[in-house]
Amino acid sequence: MKPRLAITLGDVNGIGPEITLKALAHPTMGEICSPVVVGSVQALESARAFAPNCPPLKAVQSMKGRFPTDAVPVLGSGAPPPQLNPGVVTAEAGCAAVEWIKEAVRLALRKEVDGIVTCPVNKKGIQLAGYPYLGHTEILQEMTGVDEVFMSLFSDKLRIVHVTAHRPLKDAIAALDTPRIVRAVRAGYDALVRLGLRQKRIAVAGVNPHAGEDSILGTEEDRIVKPAVEACRAEGLPCSGPYPPDTVFRRMFEGEFELVVALYHDQGHVPFKLVAMDEGTQVTLGIPIVRTSVDHGTAYDIAWKGVARENSLCAAVRFAALLARSQAQP
Amino acid sequence: MKPRLAITLGDVNGIGPEITLKALAHPTMGEICSPVVVGSVQALESARAFAPNCPPLKAVQSMKGRFPTDAVPVLGSGAPPPQLNPGVVTAEAGCAAVEWIKEAVRLALRKEVDGIVTCPVNKKGIQLAGYPYLGHTEILQEMTGVDEVFMSLFSDKLRIVHVTAHRPLKDAIAALDTPRIVRAVRAGYDALVRLGLRQKRIAVAGVNPHAGEDSILGTEEDRIVKPAVEACRAEGLPCSGPYPPDTVFRRMFEGEFELVVALYHDQGHVPFKLVAMDEGTQVTLGIPIVRTSVDHGTAYDIAWKGVARENSLCAAVRFAALLARSQAQP
Repeated sequence: MKPRLAITLGDVNGIGPEITLKALAHPTMGEICSPVVVGSVQALESARAFAPNCPPLKAVQSMKGRFPTDAVPVLGSGAPPPQLNPGVVTAEAGCAAVEWIKEAVRLALRKEVDGIVTCPVNKKGIQLAGYPYLGHTEILQEMTGVDEVFMSLFSDKLRIVHVTAHRPLKDAIAALDTPRIVRAVRAGYDALVRLGLRQKRIAVAGVNPHAGEDSILGTEEDRIVKPAVEACRAEGLPCSGPYPPDTVFRRMFEGEFELVVALYHDQGHVPFKLVAMDEGTQVTLGIPIVRTSVDHGTAYDIAWKGVARENSLCAAVRFAALLARSQAQP
Repeated sequence: MKPRLAITLGDVNGIGPEITLKALAHPTMGEICSPVVVGSVQALESARAFAPNCPPLKAVQSMKGRFPTDAVPVLGSGAPPPQLNPGVVTAEAGCAAVEWIKEAVRLALRKEVDGIVTCPVNKKGIQLAGYPYLGHTEILQEMTGVDEVFMSLFSDKLRIVHVTAHRPLKDAIAALDTPRIVRAVRAGYDALVRLGLRQKRIAVAGVNPHAGEDSILGTEEDRIVKPAVEACRAEGLPCSGPYPPDTVFRRMFEGEFELVVALYHDQGHVPFKLVAMDEGTQVTLGIPIVRTSVDHGTAYDIAWKGVARENSLCAAVRFAALLARSQAQP
């Protein structure tokens, strides 16, 4: 059975409605998943001119009961749909975006959908609306009761799990910790299993040039990373390293590893954005639901002009479907 | 006039002799430069089977006087040539490698060659031979009297100058310093001028995720990097930033910038090795001579087996010729 995926519309004043319609218009969309949009059917219909081939949309009140087969269901959050103000930060759009995410997470936790795919939100809009969240991550953590998540980036050739993410680089290095690296490897391994990959070779990157070169260029590898790799191997995980950061991504790209555990944000983001920007997706690992995300922001500057590209959303849907397939059949 | 380039043979027990012959055998070699090898003609002749199309070699005693036109001149350092021990670290090979580098630097300082291109050396061999050097950089600094050099990586699409290189990442961050960033931008600009590029847009990367995001994710950008960019612009240098590290290399790759100033080793090395590994070269900026280098080591494991690839040496020769051309005509 095709996985059922909830696509959240994000900030309606950004490119979310446009890229959602464009993605739904792809003929393959219906082959890889049964999509349901969590958002405003009015906002979507306002964007229809940008994607005339998009199938019909139908507002539904819940995921229960008979489901339309000739239209894409659109579920609201109960609140009235926000007014459109293209390219403008509004509390109303921020509020709607948050409530749609919450609705989608609830659907996933109740297993009424097999995964969620999120369009971008605006941090300032969320704050204007009075929420304490910085973005999706805090909402996901609050609703799933999970303390620790791992920001990950997946494309066909690169799969990267980050041990640390949005923190100053020097703090990220100071915070490196053997148990967290072990948990990142486990989360990565679990994702490789769910993706159905035959081989699951995981490389852990070092933090210093040449992975410290026997502690001449830094001691974190010997003190923190090697013990993590050894602990993982003792658990039977197919993990090795620490490897010199400057070649490990190339080695993955050429097929030597299926996944690299990166120790800080840019270690993984620089190579990913260089070669996989348009075909990749962000994945949140560590939570009990499947969640992928576009790899860009609300793009207010080009919103509602018809020029936004849906590539990243399509990739996010594709990877959510891959991950959800096995989630649905544990 | 074609630039005259000295190619140092490096550690003879590694792949230096083989890749040198293979590079000399390329038909374009004679079009882009007049090469002279600083090394052992005996070691080269022993590798001839790996590159039967290599032109004849001729031992010469100095760069003065009439030069062979039908053969590649090979200049020694005065010392007897080292015995060959493929794949083995020896003091003899380490000693020869160092003396050849010194000879090549002397030639460049006396302007008897327009630049030098170096094959890899073995750090342990150099130490066995009793020298205090870790590698080329210390020899270059000692002989040119320069305190500060900038490790750089150049390919056709990526040009990266590193503000710091071989030091632990946390020390590299702690050592970031506005004047040194300014000097790195100047060195990069000078290289762009010498390469003859019409546009010379230089981007300075940030150090933290999202370039610190208004000091929420780190303060180095506001405290250290921005003042450097402003100082450069006040000098009239076409420089901007700090940019989020995760997209700045992609933006250069797509043609938005000609050069990126990277703040630490792997920030520049990860993207470069991912997309330009086989077509790029290392360049030492900050010294008064042109010096490029292969971007790999001695590769003892495949030495003298005929399987080594000369791509990186060819790229190093090509970039040295580009840089030397204008060096020769100041």
